[in-house]
Amino acid sequence: MKGSNNAHDIGLMGSFKFLLQKDGVFSEFFSVNNADANLILLPDGVSIDAALMATDMMSTGFYSVELADVQLGDTVVVFGIGPVGLMAVAGAKLRGAGRIIAIGTRPNCVALAQEYGATDIVSYKEGDIVGQILALESGKADSVIIAGGDSSSMNQALQVVKNNGHIANVNFYDAKDSFNIPLYQWGLGMSDITIRGGFCPGGAYRMQKMLNLIKYGRIDPSKLLNISFEGFDKIEDAFKLMDEKPKDLIKPVVHITW
Amino acid sequence: MKGSNNAHDIGLMGSFKFLLQKDGVFSEFFSVNNADANLILLPDGVSIDAALMATDMMSTGFYSVELADVQLGDTVVVFGIGPVGLMAVAGAKLRGAGRIIAIGTRPNCVALAQEYGATDIVSYKEGDIVGQILALESGKADSVIIAGGDSSSMNQALQVVKNNGHIANVNFYDAKDSFNIPLYQWGLGMSDITIRGGFCPGGAYRMQKMLNLIKYGRIDPSKLLNISFEGFDKIEDAFKLMDEKPKDLIKPVVHITW
Amino acid sequence: MKGSNNAHDIGLMGSFKFLLQKDGVFSEFFSVNNADANLILLPDGVSIDAALMATDMMSTGFYSVELADVQLGDTVVVFGIGPVGLMAVAGAKLRGAGRIIAIGTRPNCVALAQEYGATDIVSYKEGDIVGQILALESGKADSVIIAGGDSSSMNQALQVVKNNGHIANVNFYDAKDSFNIPLYQWGLGMSDITIRGGFCPGGAYRMQKMLNLIKYGRIDPSKLLNISFEGFDKIEDAFKLMDEKPKDLIKPVVHITW
Amino acid sequence: MKGSNNAHDIGLMGSFKFLLQKDGVFSEFFSVNNADANLILLPDGVSIDAALMATDMMSTGFYSVELADVQLGDTVVVFGIGPVGLMAVAGAKLRGAGRIIAIGTRPNCVALAQEYGATDIVSYKEGDIVGQILALESGKADSVIIAGGDSSSMNQALQVVKNNGHIANVNFYDAKDSFNIPLYQWGLGMSDITIRGGFCPGGAYRMQKMLNLIKYGRIDPSKLLNISFEGFDKIEDAFKLMDEKPKDLIKPVVHITW
Repeated sequence: MKGSNNAHDIGLMGSFKFLLQKDGVFSEFFSVNNADANLILLPDGVSIDAALMATDMMSTGFYSVELADVQLGDTVVVFGIGPVGLMAVAGAKLRGAGRIIAIGTRPNCVALAQEYGATDIVSYKEGDIVGQILALESGKADSVIIAGGDSSSMNQALQVVKNNGHIANVNFYDAKDSFNIPLYQWGLGMSDITIRGGFCPGGAYRMQKMLNLIKYGRIDPSKLLNISFEGFDKIEDAFKLMDEKPKDLIKPVVHITW
Repeated sequence: MKGSNNAHDIGLMGSFKFLLQKDGVFSEFFSVNNADANLILLPDGVSIDAALMATDMMSTGFYSVELADVQLGDTVVVFGIGPVGLMAVAGAKLRGAGRIIAIGTRPNCVALAQEYGATDIVSYKEGDIVGQILALESGKADSVIIAGGDSSSMNQALQVVKNNGHIANVNFYDAKDSFNIPLYQWGLGMSDITIRGGFCPGGAYRMQKMLNLIKYGRIDPSKLLNISFEGFDKIEDAFKLMDEKPKDLIKPVVHITW
Repeated sequence: MKGSNNAHDIGLMGSFKFLLQKDGVFSEFFSVNNADANLILLPDGVSIDAALMATDMMSTGFYSVELADVQLGDTVVVFGIGPVGLMAVAGAKLRGAGRIIAIGTRPNCVALAQEYGATDIVSYKEGDIVGQILALESGKADSVIIAGGDSSSMNQALQVVKNNGHIANVNFYDAKDSFNIPLYQWGLGMSDITIRGGFCPGGAYRMQKMLNLIKYGRIDPSKLLNISFEGFDKIEDAFKLMDEKPKDLIKPVVHITW
Repeated sequence: MKGSNNAHDIGLMGSFKFLLQKDGVFSEFFSVNNADANLILLPDGVSIDAALMATDMMSTGFYSVELADVQLGDTVVVFGIGPVGLMAVAGAKLRGAGRIIAIGTRPNCVALAQEYGATDIVSYKEGDIVGQILALESGKADSVIIAGGDSSSMNQALQVVKNNGHIANVNFYDAKDSFNIPLYQWGLGMSDITIRGGFCPGGAYRMQKMLNLIKYGRIDPSKLLNISFEGFDKIEDAFKLMDEKPKDLIKPVVHITW
């Protein structure tokens, strides 16, 4: 199936609904459907923390880079440097991008973006994002990855991407949101810019690839986990933290020993 | 260069501006830049009329099918059955589509769409287009080609295309137009639907391929030329006709003998 | 997985071994593993004979065209016009090839090749195949499909394909056979010719696409079945015929009514 | 044009013949055809040495990785760790390979291979290469790059690559050489392994991408230049050195100040 993502095999984001709406996923044992296709042994040399980040943050961030068709030496803009955006930065570097321009402001995320491969940081606090990107000497970008922001990010992306370029979206929008795109931004429909929004791919084959990248030292996604809890009874605290989104949070983890 | 269309090498639609804004293209002789890359001998067995249609209507319509990544057995919806839409229908058949659903109403265009390969015709005069397409038993389409309509066509296209499907646009929009896309139609940004709008590719290599299709009897694009003028002094009449767009016009041709 | 063919998921041609080495496949009922992924309802308007040909001859022949990456207007050479080669010819036409040069000699196969879209027939009885192909005015081919012949077909293919062209093999070789390829034929390793040999893809998704092509009148593969038997007890006769390969045989069918 | 390399536009390796067979390329000034397409300004932050390596060693090595279609987390085997093989190793890392197994023996090349990203080194001095690779726990490789060795490298490559995998050749063979490939190694023609041999792509667009990788610190190809000469009159010495191929030579450079 052409460029297909089997996450939608049982309907839009079917794989996601299955995972999160299935009861008991926090218990000691639970069933996994089609285990041959969905489970994989944790290899030596990969920590639990890194493996945890591989399944969603890393797979999603890296998928955005695949959707954006990043090629050797490309200039890539990444909107948003939350956990997925940070993995998009790391993935762009891993696919051979040259210049990587990351959009964000929170200091610990900025530092991590630079560690993962960002060459330039642009902040909305410094003024118009589009103007700042275009002022950088490399001109328009080969690819733009939207991993944060709101429904106006698409407009901004269209203004900074080259003709023949790619825009990849992995940002999740509210069903009540909408894009409003002036068509001169999309080159009157003639610009040969490709737009694709996609959903985190999973499965054993994919996870084997992600874990290999960790095992062979190409990436350490566990750096995203900057707040740590210990014990089953801390799950609720961790969820609360994710809901409150304090400025210094990247991603929390709860370690449970059975 | 990834999926690149060199029509934009000197800026958005640079090749188009060069062609149409260059003085003297109706004279007996005129210069063609980079002749090695842009001129090709008319092969035996290809009429002037067919060759004329190859350069733009056929190349554009077929490009829409390439942008839509039509695969063997796919269901394809084509919005609009003017000259480009008709060539999109013909191109979809030539790339191996199974069901081809064409949207249009004008009787001579409907007849030609069916001759070029449309299996189903949907008319806005019969009610909501989206509802009619979804009522066909094949479910959603693998690809949608927008070769007509207005800025609401994108919304309709998103409602009839599968997850992982493609939407290709070759419709030219006014700079004052805009898309307004409710994001649930784009699967909240997660649907893995690819959207690309592109511009007619040209050049000798491309034209050789187009002319081969005519020469070997795979397609006859000269059927688009349903109104004919004779003589240099009829150019103005032909332009007026294109401006007035009478219901029975598909494409006019002016034959000039020097 | 990049360009992957899941026929090899349980080892080289695993899907094939499973099918043919499983007991009882001629009985009235038999089990099919992973039925959701492997079974599909026969649609109205598709004959049993056509559906039978879809599962292997058509899927394999069409796959060769996909491996050869046939593009609109391409010149394609097909070595061999047995059932798979004939479906390669039909598939090349369905993917938009311009000139299709088929290599073969048996009169009923030649006639069917022309009906399926071959524009030129080359026979080894008329002399050297390579010389004959190169003498045609189109120069070298964009793609060559090997669907017959012996281990020297690869040498011949390399001599008639363009730099940047594709050679697709769906011919099954004996394990004792070997290629002997003078490297000047492969452009000293520098020619950017792609070579891929592959195995018939199956599964419900693939078969749905094949059956759509039949249902919507794009292809009738049942023309391959030129010898017909009636009744369960004729299975052995049919196998004997396939073993003897009489000159006028394309493919036999045994109709069984339970 | 599908997967095309315009190095062959005027015949096999036409770009190469043009460069090396043109008189005067060592003089202070010389003409470059199609300068817009072939010249590019050296950006700040890129040394002459690095730029020199970008035009051939790096472009060729990286092209092998593109031909091999290396994906995130793949296992890649590189035959040969001369300058091109070393750049293949570096390119595989830059495209996101996980495990990179390099075949070679010379100590300074082994050290540089490890610095550029090789995770494993295999030496023919330690016994059969195929057996050593298969003994590594990762099983067969996703891709094999041939950047050295002789005509038996293809046989070895076929034995260590997965079904559906890729073999990319950038090794230049003598016209008198030939492949002799037992067909069980190619899976009887059914293995869905893709084989492509290609030639160094050039041009301003390509070089811009290569130079960006250097400018933004993703790669330093000047490490290949381990022997240095000063002055126009040392050109002959450098050529002699390349002809003699002493064990410790990777690539020599002659710096000329006008």
